[in-house]
Amino acid sequence: MTPDAIDAALARIGPSLRRTPMLDAPALDRRAGRRVLVKAECLQHTGSFKYRGGKSAVTALMAARPPSGVLAFSSGNHAQGVARAAQEAGLPAVIVMPRDAPDAKIAATRAYGAETVLYDRMRDDREAIGQRIAAERGLALVRPFDDPEVVAGQGTVGLEIARQARDAGMDRAEVLVPCGGGGLSAGIALALSRDAPGLRVRPVEPEGYDDFARSLQAGERLPIAPSAPSICDALLSPRPGELTFPVLKRLAGPGLAVSDAECLVAMAWAFRTLKICLEPGGAVALAAALFHGDELEGENVIVVATGGNVDPEMFCRALSPVRHEA
Amino acid sequence: MTPDAIDAALARIGPSLRRTPMLDAPALDRRAGRRVLVKAECLQHTGSFKYRGGKSAVTALMAARPPSGVLAFSSGNHAQGVARAAQEAGLPAVIVMPRDAPDAKIAATRAYGAETVLYDRMRDDREAIGQRIAAERGLALVRPFDDPEVVAGQGTVGLEIARQARDAGMDRAEVLVPCGGGGLSAGIALALSRDAPGLRVRPVEPEGYDDFARSLQAGERLPIAPSAPSICDALLSPRPGELTFPVLKRLAGPGLAVSDAECLVAMAWAFRTLKICLEPGGAVALAAALFHGDELEGENVIVVATGGNVDPEMFCRALSPVRHEA
Repeated sequence: MTPDAIDAALARIGPSLRRTPMLDAPALDRRAGRRVLVKAECLQHTGSFKYRGGKSAVTALMAARPPSGVLAFSSGNHAQGVARAAQEAGLPAVIVMPRDAPDAKIAATRAYGAETVLYDRMRDDREAIGQRIAAERGLALVRPFDDPEVVAGQGTVGLEIARQARDAGMDRAEVLVPCGGGGLSAGIALALSRDAPGLRVRPVEPEGYDDFARSLQAGERLPIAPSAPSICDALLSPRPGELTFPVLKRLAGPGLAVSDAECLVAMAWAFRTLKICLEPGGAVALAAALFHGDELEGENVIVVATGGNVDPEMFCRALSPVRHEA
Repeated sequence: MTPDAIDAALARIGPSLRRTPMLDAPALDRRAGRRVLVKAECLQHTGSFKYRGGKSAVTALMAARPPSGVLAFSSGNHAQGVARAAQEAGLPAVIVMPRDAPDAKIAATRAYGAETVLYDRMRDDREAIGQRIAAERGLALVRPFDDPEVVAGQGTVGLEIARQARDAGMDRAEVLVPCGGGGLSAGIALALSRDAPGLRVRPVEPEGYDDFARSLQAGERLPIAPSAPSICDALLSPRPGELTFPVLKRLAGPGLAVSDAECLVAMAWAFRTLKICLEPGGAVALAAALFHGDELEGENVIVVATGGNVDPEMFCRALSPVRHEA
């Protein structure tokens, strides 16, 4: 893949996107010990960056040979992105979701007109369920990350970061990106490699789900065998993507891993200093900036805050022990 | 006052401002029964639009005859706006705040380097306290709304709304603005009167503190005698401003009043559909759009979401009964 694919995606989806703001706060800079800019993709349509990839894939399908509908597997953010993009294209959408996905994500996916099929993460084979439905109804599968059009759509975040960093006078920085299958990290890395070569992507994962960090270190795609659950439901992929890993192996710095507790505190910091609502998986990069500064290089960090689709109970759990240490 | 004053303020403070996004969500449109755009000023520096007015006043002072410091009375948002503007100008700031202001607002004001002087709303005479300190130290008073430079600074929100509404293809709309002393409402009304005459300001107040609604109806400034407290700490002014009332009498539509309970539900809607954190007073306009649609005219409404400086306890109180009725 090359940055040109991202330009092509932008040409299709640009008018539909929200250009999300780059936020900052003096208290965050002080806590992190360096300048921190936060790309607030929780403010994207559907509450996460996933709308970009979903819209890119659906518009590409429509431009080629329109399917009779689309199908996606997702714990909720890709679900909403694909559901909204399909609704805008007038296509039916079926989303196969784990039964333990946050209520907010299931309800919002349905609100975009999608049919949801729930499965049990432990017992059911979601691939089999999805393939049967797709075959029966002639639906096109929109993969969450191992699809060039999806990666290109997510890469539009990188085009915006390059411009916003330049506007902020920041030409060198570590760019911390929440990482599941690696679609967003790869897309941003591709965009920056051309438009802002002084900015380097560092994928951030939940502890125990750090397949990218381990694989980047080993130089090959390694699966992980998680020993404990994580509240970062958006980032629980078991191995790096086939398409995304080579991109990150070439362009990204070492991966980082953060704990669930660090994510919760980062959510409270975002609430208090930036006035944005983040979900746990959307806060891993901010958590890395706040708590893993010793693993970062340089004076500047750009944090991608990927999503805000969180149930009130989890959000208030994050706020309950707020420390007023600004 | 004329719109030219707003252009002059923008020339001074434009490079320091964050151009806040105009957000929307299909679920909000459905609930409100019309198209809803939300101007997210909670994402402004210091977490509220008040930075605009504070920065405008402080930069005007510095351009004329720099004082040895500034002083302000505020329950917290004007406090932070003035404190940050003073800090940026290298001026000391003293902020006289009610002792029952939200902890988040007191802590944040101090974090911007200001000295805070706390008083008791019931027993102390804040004017006397402020005048004594100002006289002793030679500080310039920055009023929260009855100051042309402050109104001009707040009016820059109106310039942005005019452009963003045009970009969204919206040339007629009711513009709902949270209203305390009327500085923001007056500034926006002035800007729109020139740049977007199809957009009409409607001030929104907490029930029991609807001095503007009553005064606009009577055609003269009337004080109110609140019978009950309100959680909207930012909007508890007892009478319309001397400078702001004539502007709104000329340019605004009738006022609206919302209950504390409606504000709390609006905060939950903003959390769920827009991923922004609002304080109670910052949510009154959204509450009016959601619950007082029968008092509005036309197909479109623009909501100004003025601030997000809220304690976690109050925020979680708003989220606790969230209704998933999207």
